[in-house]
Parts: sequence; structure tokens; C-alpha cells
Amino acid sequence: MLFDIVEGGVLAARDFVAAAVAAGLKQDGVLDMVMIHSLRPAAAVATLTRNVFRAAPTYVTGEAVADGYARTIIVNSGNANCATGSQGLADARRMGELAAELTGVAVDDTIVCSTGRIGVPLPMDRVEAGIRKLAPLLSREDPVAVARGILTTDTVEKISTTRFTVGGRTAHLGGICKGAGMICPNMATMLCFITTDLAIAPDLLNSALQEAVKYSFNCISVDGDMSTNDTVAVLANGAAGNAPLTSEDDEGYEAFAAALSHVCRDLAQQIVRDGEEVTRFLEIQVTGAPDYATAHELARKLATYTLFKCAVFGADFNWGRIAAALGSSLLPFDPATTTITWQGLVAWKDGEPQPFDEAAAQAAAGAEDHLIVIDLAAGEASCTYWTSDLTPGYVEFNTH
Amino acid sequence: MLFDIVEGGVLAARDFVAAAVAAGLKQDGVLDMVMIHSLRPAAAVATLTRNVFRAAPTYVTGEAVADGYARTIIVNSGNANCATGSQGLADARRMGELAAELTGVAVDDTIVCSTGRIGVPLPMDRVEAGIRKLAPLLSREDPVAVARGILTTDTVEKISTTRFTVGGRTAHLGGICKGAGMICPNMATMLCFITTDLAIAPDLLNSALQEAVKYSFNCISVDGDMSTNDTVAVLANGAAGNAPLTSEDDEGYEAFAAALSHVCRDLAQQIVRDGEEVTRFLEIQVTGAPDYATAHELARKLATYTLFKCAVFGADFNWGRIAAALGSSLLPFDPATTTITWQGLVAWKDGEPQPFDEAAAQAAAGAEDHLIVIDLAAGEASCTYWTSDLTPGYVEFNTH
Repeated sequence: MLFDIVEGGVLAARDFVAAAVAAGLKQDGVLDMVMIHSLRPAAAVATLTRNVFRAAPTYVTGEAVADGYARTIIVNSGNANCATGSQGLADARRMGELAAELTGVAVDDTIVCSTGRIGVPLPMDRVEAGIRKLAPLLSREDPVAVARGILTTDTVEKISTTRFTVGGRTAHLGGICKGAGMICPNMATMLCFITTDLAIAPDLLNSALQEAVKYSFNCISVDGDMSTNDTVAVLANGAAGNAPLTSEDDEGYEAFAAALSHVCRDLAQQIVRDGEEVTRFLEIQVTGAPDYATAHELARKLATYTLFKCAVFGADFNWGRIAAALGSSLLPFDPATTTITWQGLVAWKDGEPQPFDEAAAQAAAGAEDHLIVIDLAAGEASCTYWTSDLTPGYVEFNTH
Repeated sequence: MLFDIVEGGVLAARDFVAAAVAAGLKQDGVLDMVMIHSLRPAAAVATLTRNVFRAAPTYVTGEAVADGYARTIIVNSGNANCATGSQGLADARRMGELAAELTGVAVDDTIVCSTGRIGVPLPMDRVEAGIRKLAPLLSREDPVAVARGILTTDTVEKISTTRFTVGGRTAHLGGICKGAGMICPNMATMLCFITTDLAIAPDLLNSALQEAVKYSFNCISVDGDMSTNDTVAVLANGAAGNAPLTSEDDEGYEAFAAALSHVCRDLAQQIVRDGEEVTRFLEIQVTGAPDYATAHELARKLATYTLFKCAVFGADFNWGRIAAALGSSLLPFDPATTTITWQGLVAWKDGEPQPFDEAAAQAAAGAEDHLIVIDLAAGEASCTYWTSDLTPGYVEFNTH
């Protein structure tokens, strides 16, 4: 399906406003707080990290979307407000209260997110001052600054925008996200905010989001580390004027679901490409699997197998490490029917290593973008997963 | 329990002989093949990798110990004979047949092991010549050379030896192992060979080995990557002259089990300390757990959490990454009752981050040996796990 790519990120949809400021949580002058606000009531859903040590704001966000509606999102980068105890929870609630007050919405209509270092209390004087600065700056002016304000170790803004037609109306859908390390989400992801002017019931919005996240943010890994703050939130404010979608059978739902999946997959891949100090991007396709869980777990095993990722960094066509990684899943797949293909070169098939041209293998391993296909010949299910290499730079980068 | 540490590795026990040669599988003149042989019938058991893509020799070894007896071990380093298809299996069988013929034992009394690069056929001309050189060199002369001959990327020989008393007789038990990368065993480990002159029934020897491996080789990780060739094999030839042990209640069994556990844990820790390009050694103790599986999984999660291992390398007292790692297990432990202590400094307790002295934290993080204690206050079970830091050098080292 081709998507109508447009500009605007979270400001592509009508009746959304946003702003970003430098509140002094990161080094001087760097944007580190963002507010996103719907000018009208909006259906709101979110998926949150399942990490047991999850951050204080994820509790506040969970409460905010519990009734299916929210209007304001307040975010800080530079501090995760995680493992901060009772003070952290009070701070997250205070962020929500102040943002709600200043944007004229109910306290339980405010989504709160933080990202940054774990275990350090929020400097609430600066956070509160930041929120007070943000509210009067809300506008439809600068979607790129808004995307920049949520970043931590990312090197580029991550924005994806599309539009689609529903009931004769044009609806817009756009998102931003951040994340470059601690990337191996499970039922959640790093911070991601999506807005749409579609009118849609919260339950239906939620099931569409779960489906989109399953095949996007839950199919990426930079370092295999699940985070404590992962949040994907979607606001849908109905400004497109369509008759509200309430069922998957409604005309226009399919176009919306496709648009949402497109934006989620686009953003997820942008995260991997901007992984901390990575040099190569890999798409792993596991095909012919008996079920999706098997395909996903094999892809994940390969995407997180340290020695394979080192070989990719080194441009070493070491396909044996692919075999070792797949086997370490302990899943009951059969090596005798499995085919391993790396950049079009078949390395293993019919239970035997396959001859390949050394020069071609060297050239393949040197590519910046890689496609690895694992075909199990054992069913119809498949999974596509994205990952990066592991580099000495990543380790150096994360020593503090 | 204090152990009587003696010399000799796999040659400490009576009526074992061994040899090592340079067969040309690694660079010129480096020892790369080893033979170990019992001069009398020996009970033999092994634990093997559960990797689905496991190497050809692990099949041959599984067959050899199926009846509980074996006498000869033939090993090559420099090539894993893994993902080598039908030729690989034929080669592994040929190694066993030739070693059996030259040492005068039955084909099914020969254990075969390989370690090295995956996916490359064995150079069988050199392997066969090596086996022919080994047989006449078998002696009780040089246990260190034997330990050296099984190494790949290891920088030091790994040897552990002890003795104990059973029924008034002195029995010896000694082992050697190799492994520095692709270390995160599961029901198995890298190559490890243990000999004892104890007389013991195969079934009892097997249950003792399973128990010892559970708390040693299954409690270490260098890089989180399960290998394809992991093998721990034990030969017990009865030369000590004790009345054969047949039950856990027999006098002397406890001393034997303690000696076996001691040697396994000693060797397992030697593997972590010699991890590829690592700079720090960590002991992780999870205590107060509801059951061993929970304690083990939390310890393993922390020991394989990339960002935590980067922080340890960088001497950064980033305890928040410990919280993130534990939480990523998705196990139902309670952060509110959990205490995180790193080198004696309590970082998290009673659901709150704890104040600590910055200078003390910096000093603690700079240590070469670390003790991290995670107390769940939720039961009586515990697990001790050993791991290393992750370094840029590890990544560089594994780019080929």
C-alpha cells in the first residue's frame, strides 16, 4: 500500500497544538520539555512498558487513559523519573496537575511522560517553570521542535505523517518518537506520541494501536534491553468530521489501521537507524513458521545475539553465528528444513552448509542495510524484525 | 567447606593418561588436539548444549555416554564442527572411531568434542594425523599442556583439582575447561572434562553432575550467548578402590558431591574471569526469593543486561540500570520490598532510592571484583551468579 506522506508530525491533524522549551533539565538551551494539547475532547489510548520497575509517570498515564479520553500530554526528557520512590510518584502527579490546570482540562485527561537517567529525583522547580512556559506557547507552528524536545541520546528527530480518507473526509495521522538505547520493547516501546483528527471510539482505537505496536515497536531491538519508561500514546480528536468509527467493519477503519501501522513501523525503523553509535541496519524476516510467536522469538533471538551483532559490525559473513543464535532459542524448529539467506546468499539449506563465493560474501557483509531471511518451511506464519549491529562505540557511549 | 587443593587437573586421578599435540588446526605450533583416556573401564556422563543447531560431535558424545560408560575423550579446538551437515556428522564419527581403535576401546566408549568457528568443515587429514600422533603420547606427564590444548580465545589454562575421602580411601577429582566467549550456558556449558578415580554408579554420577552444573556453569554469563558445542563430561574409573557408590545415602557421597561442585564452580568462575577482553568480575547474589527459578532468572537478567554491563565497564555507579534490568524480567517481584546493594552501598530499599556518598560510590564502581546483592524479602531461595563487564574490546575482538 502506498501512503500519502505529508508534513507535520503531531501537528498534521487539525485542532492539535504543541510547544517545546528548554527547561534546564539537559545542558543549557537544549529543548527538554514538550506539551501537546487537543483543542477538543479526544479519545486517548496508550501502551505502557511492562517492566516491573516501571517509572512513576507510566502510572499517571495509565490512570489518564483508563476512561479512554485525554487531551494534554506533558513530557520531559533528561530524567526518567524512575526508581524515584514516593517522591517520584508525587512529582509525576504534580506535572499532570499543573499541565491540566494551565490547559483547562481535567487532571485525569493529562498524560505524563519522562525519559532520561534512572534513579535521580526530578528537579521540580525547573520542571514546574517549564510547564508554565509551555502553556502560553502552544501553537501549530513548529512540529520539528516538538519532535526534538523529547529526544535524549537520539541524533535526529523522528517524525512520520500520513493522511487517509474516511467517509469522504480527509483525516490526518502523525507521530513523533524518541529512543536510541535501552531498546527492546515488549508490549510497549520508547516514548511515542501520535495524534489524529479521526473520530473513533476509544476501544476501537485501542485495538488498532495494539495491533500496530505488535508489528512495529515490538519488532525492534538495539541492545536487547527493555526500558522502564516505554509509552506509546495516541490522541484522536475527531476534527476530521467523519462519522465516528466504532467497529472494525466501519468504512474507513481499514485505511486508518493501515495508516497507523505505517506510522508506527516508520517510527520504529527510525529508532533502529538512530541506535546509539550503530553503523548498520538489519531487516530480519523469519518465514514459513508454524505460528507468529515462533517467528517473532527466532527473529528476536538473532536480533539480540551479541556475537552475531559484533560480526555484522565487523563486516564478517559469519553465518554460523546466525545458526547458533537461532538454536539458542530452544524452540523446536528443524535445522534440516531451515534455509538461511543473507543478502541473497544462501548459507545453509537442506541440512547442509551451502557453497558461496567468498568475494560476494565479503561484499554482502559490508553493506550498510542488510536483509536476512530465515525460512523454516514449517508453516505460513512470518515476522519482520529490525535491528542494528553492536559497536565498540555503543559500549563506550554507555559507560556513563 | 574447605577443599584440599592439589595439582594435576584431569591427571590427578589414578589410571588416567592424556596428551596434547599441535595438529595444524590453529596457527603453527599451537596445541589444538587433546586425548584423555582411562586405563580401566569408567562410568561416564555428560551434559550437552540444548542449542537446536548443536554441533555434530555432541550427537556422538550423547551416544557414547548413553550406556553410562566411556573411556576415551578426543577433542579438537580451532573448529566447532557445527552447522557442517552430513559431512560434519561423518567427520565426528570418524574421530571417535579412530580414537577408539588407537586406544583399544569400543567405538561407543569414545567421547568426541570440537570447539572453534562454526560452519566450516573440519580438515580431516590434519585431524586424523593429530589423533594418530596423540595415542602413543598418552602419559601422566603434563596436565597443563592438556588444559592448554582445548583452549580457543582463552588466555589462560583453566584447571581445578581436589581430593576427598570415601570409605577410608582417598579419591581424586580434577577438571579442565575452556570458554571465553559465547558464554551463557543452559543445562550445559562450554567444554569441560572432569576425571575422578572414585568408583560410582553412572546414574548417581549423572545426578551429581546435573546438580553441580546447575549451580556452576548454568550460573555464568559473559555475553548472554548460548553456544552450540557446550559439553561437560565426567569419567569415574574407580581406581581409588572404594566400594562403589550407588546411592546418595552412601558414606562418602556427600564429600564427592561437594568436591564435584567445588571444581565446577571454580572452573565456571575461571571462565568468567577470562571472558574475552573483560575487565571486571561480578558476583550477583539474589536472596530472599520465593523459589530458585525466580532468583536465577533475576540474576541472569542482570548479568545479561547490556547497558548495566557497559556502566560496570565505565566504573559508573548507575544502579538505576540494575532496577531496569530486574524489572525487564517481567517476574512478579515487588520493588517495594526489594533491596539493591552494590559493594555494600544500599542504593534502593523500602520502595525508595537511598542516599549514598558520591565518593564512596565512585570508589565502589571502580573495583575489579564486585558483589551485588538483590534481596527480595519474599522467601528463602537464593542464587549466586557470575558475570563480567561488557567492553569495547569484546566487540572489536568478535568482529571476525
